[in-house]
Amino acid sequence: MTITITAFERSPDGGKGLARDTRVRWALEEAGLPYDVRLVSFRAMKEPAHLALHPFGQIPTYEEDGLVLFETGAIVLYIAQRHGGLLPEDANARARAVAWMFAAVNTVEPPILELVTARIFEGDKPWSKERLPLVEERVRDRLRQLSAHLGDAEWLDGPFSAGDLMMVSVLLRTRPSGILDEFPTLAAYVARGEARPAYQRAFAAQLAVNAPPAHP
Amino acid sequence: MTITITAFERSPDGGKGLARDTRVRWALEEAGLPYDVRLVSFRAMKEPAHLALHPFGQIPTYEEDGLVLFETGAIVLYIAQRHGGLLPEDANARARAVAWMFAAVNTVEPPILELVTARIFEGDKPWSKERLPLVEERVRDRLRQLSAHLGDAEWLDGPFSAGDLMMVSVLLRTRPSGILDEFPTLAAYVARGEARPAYQRAFAAQLAVNAPPAHP
Repeated sequence: MTITITAFERSPDGGKGLARDTRVRWALEEAGLPYDVRLVSFRAMKEPAHLALHPFGQIPTYEEDGLVLFETGAIVLYIAQRHGGLLPEDANARARAVAWMFAAVNTVEPPILELVTARIFEGDKPWSKERLPLVEERVRDRLRQLSAHLGDAEWLDGPFSAGDLMMVSVLLRTRPSGILDEFPTLAAYVARGEARPAYQRAFAAQLAVNAPPAHP
Repeated sequence: MTITITAFERSPDGGKGLARDTRVRWALEEAGLPYDVRLVSFRAMKEPAHLALHPFGQIPTYEEDGLVLFETGAIVLYIAQRHGGLLPEDANARARAVAWMFAAVNTVEPPILELVTARIFEGDKPWSKERLPLVEERVRDRLRQLSAHLGDAEWLDGPFSAGDLMMVSVLLRTRPSGILDEFPTLAAYVARGEARPAYQRAFAAQLAVNAPPAHP
């Protein structure tokens, strides 16, 4: 079995691990699966060859023998369903872990994406300064609820799962704004995710692409 | 097996089917599963009893014997994995249908949610008139890509699946702004979804709660 994923030739974050290929790399590392990476330029992402793999012209994609998948959450779930370490065995616990994957991308991430848009793409607009606090407050609303749920627990629901992998990855996007650190419970949760050897390997692999070590 | 879902006591859309319980009702109808509904007020959604079922204080939730689930996508996937009619048998086709579920909620829905927020919660802000076209254009970007992918096909990838159920439900939210009708391919796709008997039963059931027929 040969697994090939796609990633940015040059990530917009310069290698801070926020590009979504990091999530897929992390899942593959947790599952102990080797993989190849094909780097794609911004221009190539919008061309027919890549659009045939990913209808929205984004990364990552996932190829494994006859299968082509897009959409990070779906790729992580596919890996998690077929290999150990990312989903509990018990059927009910498994369904709950999947619920946390969807909560990460459909409940917690949308206001965070809106904040990213407000800061990066609307940062120069006349309304930016007055509007930004509103957008930040919507992110805080979600983080408050998530923090209350997590409490003293190590992970969201029992042992580490693909739900935590997705949630930690989504929360990482709130660090540049300073909002993550307003929630010590969540900052510690994210730090536990980052401390996992599989995450560290994934992060290092994407960093090596985006900020390759200088040659003396 | 007794299935109980939660829904708004009074939906903000007055019964147009945009509340997320409609997606779960639709999945249950496609699978031919009877279910009970417990209605929840806005106030009760934020109280401990409901937060124990749904950490973000929203609807729908799903209860089945010992299992409690939240997050619409996860509930629809749980139903689809255990009953016929919502996912293909072939493993690769099944993974691709799940990819479309995630694409619906993580790629297509976020700009649509941003548009809903811009119209409803920021409609009275001084920047509203100038900013709205930017937000609408982000929705159109996604709809253009989706429309190009769909082309002449009836559904996104082979027969109707949970991926279509989620995508049609997400697209329905673009109808009030008029944007859906700018894309005839997608408007026809949504109409095919709405024409399904299972959708019609789901829509009627939520409408009966939100706009009960007057008694003469």
